Amino acid sequence: MAASQFSPSRRSAVARFQVMDIVGDVDAMKAQGIDVISLGAGEPSGGAPAAVNREAARLHNLQAPVFNYTPSLGIKKLRQAIADHYRRWYDLDIGYESVAVTTGSSGAFVASFIAAFDVGDRVGLARPGYPAYRNILSALDVDVVDLPAGLETNFRFNVEKLAEFHAEQPLDGLILASPNNPTGTMVTRDDMRQLATWCGENGVRLVSDEIYHGITYGQDRGTSAWEFDRNSIVISSFSKYWGMPGWRLGWMLMPEDLEPAVSGLAGSISLCPPAAGQHAAIEAFSADAYTESDAEVAEFARTRQLVLDNVDRLGWRNAAPADGAFYYYAQPSEQVLARYGNTVAYAAAVLEHAHVALVPGVDFDGVDGGQYIRISFAAGYDNVARAIERIVEFNATIG
Amino acid sequence: MAASQFSPSRRSAVARFQVMDIVGDVDAMKAQGIDVISLGAGEPSGGAPAAVNREAARLHNLQAPVFNYTPSLGIKKLRQAIADHYRRWYDLDIGYESVAVTTGSSGAFVASFIAAFDVGDRVGLARPGYPAYRNILSALDVDVVDLPAGLETNFRFNVEKLAEFHAEQPLDGLILASPNNPTGTMVTRDDMRQLATWCGENGVRLVSDEIYHGITYGQDRGTSAWEFDRNSIVISSFSKYWGMPGWRLGWMLMPEDLEPAVSGLAGSISLCPPAAGQHAAIEAFSADAYTESDAEVAEFARTRQLVLDNVDRLGWRNAAPADGAFYYYAQPSEQVLARYGNTVAYAAAVLEHAHVALVPGVDFDGVDGGQYIRISFAAGYDNVARAIERIVEFNATIG
Repeated sequence: MAASQFSPSRRSAVARFQVMDIVGDVDAMKAQGIDVISLGAGEPSGGAPAAVNREAARLHNLQAPVFNYTPSLGIKKLRQAIADHYRRWYDLDIGYESVAVTTGSSGAFVASFIAAFDVGDRVGLARPGYPAYRNILSALDVDVVDLPAGLETNFRFNVEKLAEFHAEQPLDGLILASPNNPTGTMVTRDDMRQLATWCGENGVRLVSDEIYHGITYGQDRGTSAWEFDRNSIVISSFSKYWGMPGWRLGWMLMPEDLEPAVSGLAGSISLCPPAAGQHAAIEAFSADAYTESDAEVAEFARTRQLVLDNVDRLGWRNAAPADGAFYYYAQPSEQVLARYGNTVAYAAAVLEHAHVALVPGVDFDGVDGGQYIRISFAAGYDNVARAIERIVEFNATIG
Repeated sequence: MAASQFSPSRRSAVARFQVMDIVGDVDAMKAQGIDVISLGAGEPSGGAPAAVNREAARLHNLQAPVFNYTPSLGIKKLRQAIADHYRRWYDLDIGYESVAVTTGSSGAFVASFIAAFDVGDRVGLARPGYPAYRNILSALDVDVVDLPAGLETNFRFNVEKLAEFHAEQPLDGLILASPNNPTGTMVTRDDMRQLATWCGENGVRLVSDEIYHGITYGQDRGTSAWEFDRNSIVISSFSKYWGMPGWRLGWMLMPEDLEPAVSGLAGSISLCPPAAGQHAAIEAFSADAYTESDAEVAEFARTRQLVLDNVDRLGWRNAAPADGAFYYYAQPSEQVLARYGNTVAYAAAVLEHAHVALVPGVDFDGVDGGQYIRISFAAGYDNVARAIERIVEFNATIG
């Protein structure tokens, strides 16, 4: 035995996704009987639509139910139901062949990044942004290019900035999320048109993360990149609007040139998405399920308003426009930052002493993130209300 | 719009895993009302143990059931139950911290290959072998080295051959499956001891695919690499012995040096394995579930004997030792090969005319696979019996 001969790969040295570690910490504290309120992971608290759970229970109750592998890109009925959803929400005509069901949006990211990008390709990410993009790309030896989109631009990103970056250092791809995680900030319809069109014309593969569509607080549910350019990869999920994070079901709209690559890869890297969930998820597109999910969004809106109403008491400032999703991204007070140095230490203190899980911004922004925290208000109005009081009380103890 | 500027990545040009395409073809034929018998995918026909399904149904029936993200490496209770399984079957003392629950063994392959191997590393695969190994490694820009282990060595592979290869062209890793897919052939306990020990001593990362353990037709359930060396990565699954392929649940035993890398990667590339399935899968380790699964294996044994008894009628020859799993890997008659040229064309003809799905060996062996077919006899005794008659009848129509 010569353990010292072994070491992990260089490419696996990605930053840990602290949100997922916090999920583990919170679970451990709960197991000890501690009443922790988690504003950590972006998990809707309401669970799946009733019809989806009913169908899943029915399937498991069948005599000798068999959940075999499904086709790699998912069962046709679900692919068709997803295609129909694009007609319903976006007035888009999409064939089921363009839809790949995936194991969460995570499965879509891994498959599409491999299909679209080679070792050494350069892919732009808005900062702050979802850290898994960066981590997956790094693990695949794709070069990540930071595109600052923070306080100085009111957390927005547009085609002029993109063109500027590209002129200096050409990009092979761009990942764009709207509503964005961690900020909740949305790309306007006009900006999406310009960005998607520009990417299509300039050979930059746009990956449009649309998993928070439907959870918005203004006039529209979100603009899809496929409304303007089908060279882009659209990624979405049952985890957010439908409240099904643990089901690990998402999907991707595949540009035609990537269809053979994605379907070939899917058969090897995942075999297929979870089978029972696929059958049950067809019910997510029933009228009842939309109604239920919309009611959930109304509840998010109420909770969001609660947060906004308490921002001064919490001492939070420089917040990103919380247009959608269920996140609020802001700086804690100068007093807090002076006391703790950064939000990693502050979040640890809040978890330990106030039993509220916040996420430090370092997950999302390697430069300025230490000054920010993200809260997820998907945990429900009452939980968020209690958490706010705990944080206010805790902050009051700070020198 | 300039679609021509876009193309898939070079690394996504992996061979399609024909088994998964056949799953799609069979589904399409069934949808047309055709009575197809699939001896294609390695899917046990019996479904999950009753206790597992009961628990899954109960969870989905709860008032407002919530399946949130679990910790990235899985819920502790399931990790512990898996660790206990190693005590039960292998007399091994393993802490739950060494166990990572994964989204099928596929999830374990992707995470462990990224964690263990860098771009340009050289990893040896026995040929014939499971094609997803090769495809995932290629997609990650790891170099795959063919280690012939076919008819000339009675489909076996041992440490002398490995040392020989390594001396000429040093390997960074070795993937070993026992029972093997497509052959069902097993590594003896002595060979496993020698192989695992040699890999540990020579800095070659052994990935031991043990997903068919428990489905064996001799004295032992399979030897685990961790009985001899914990630098190796052990990968297993609920898909085979427990009959849960569509649940997408597997696990990995992590060498200590890889634990941080795997857990860091898991939080980004998968977030977590399916949540409801994890909770239900704890029941897979109940006494009843073992009894049920053992009964399923006894049924596989009966079906395997049926195949062996019909080999002459089928005209099959040069078969690999079918020690375990539920595969039979052999050459069809010279007459069949002369008529069709290779087994890709033969399998297509059998599917079209006899409505039986076989898998051509090209998935598993890029050199000699065109001479072989694999059948999965997991489809059940009666189905296999009917399929044999159809094939015999079809073969009789050949010139």
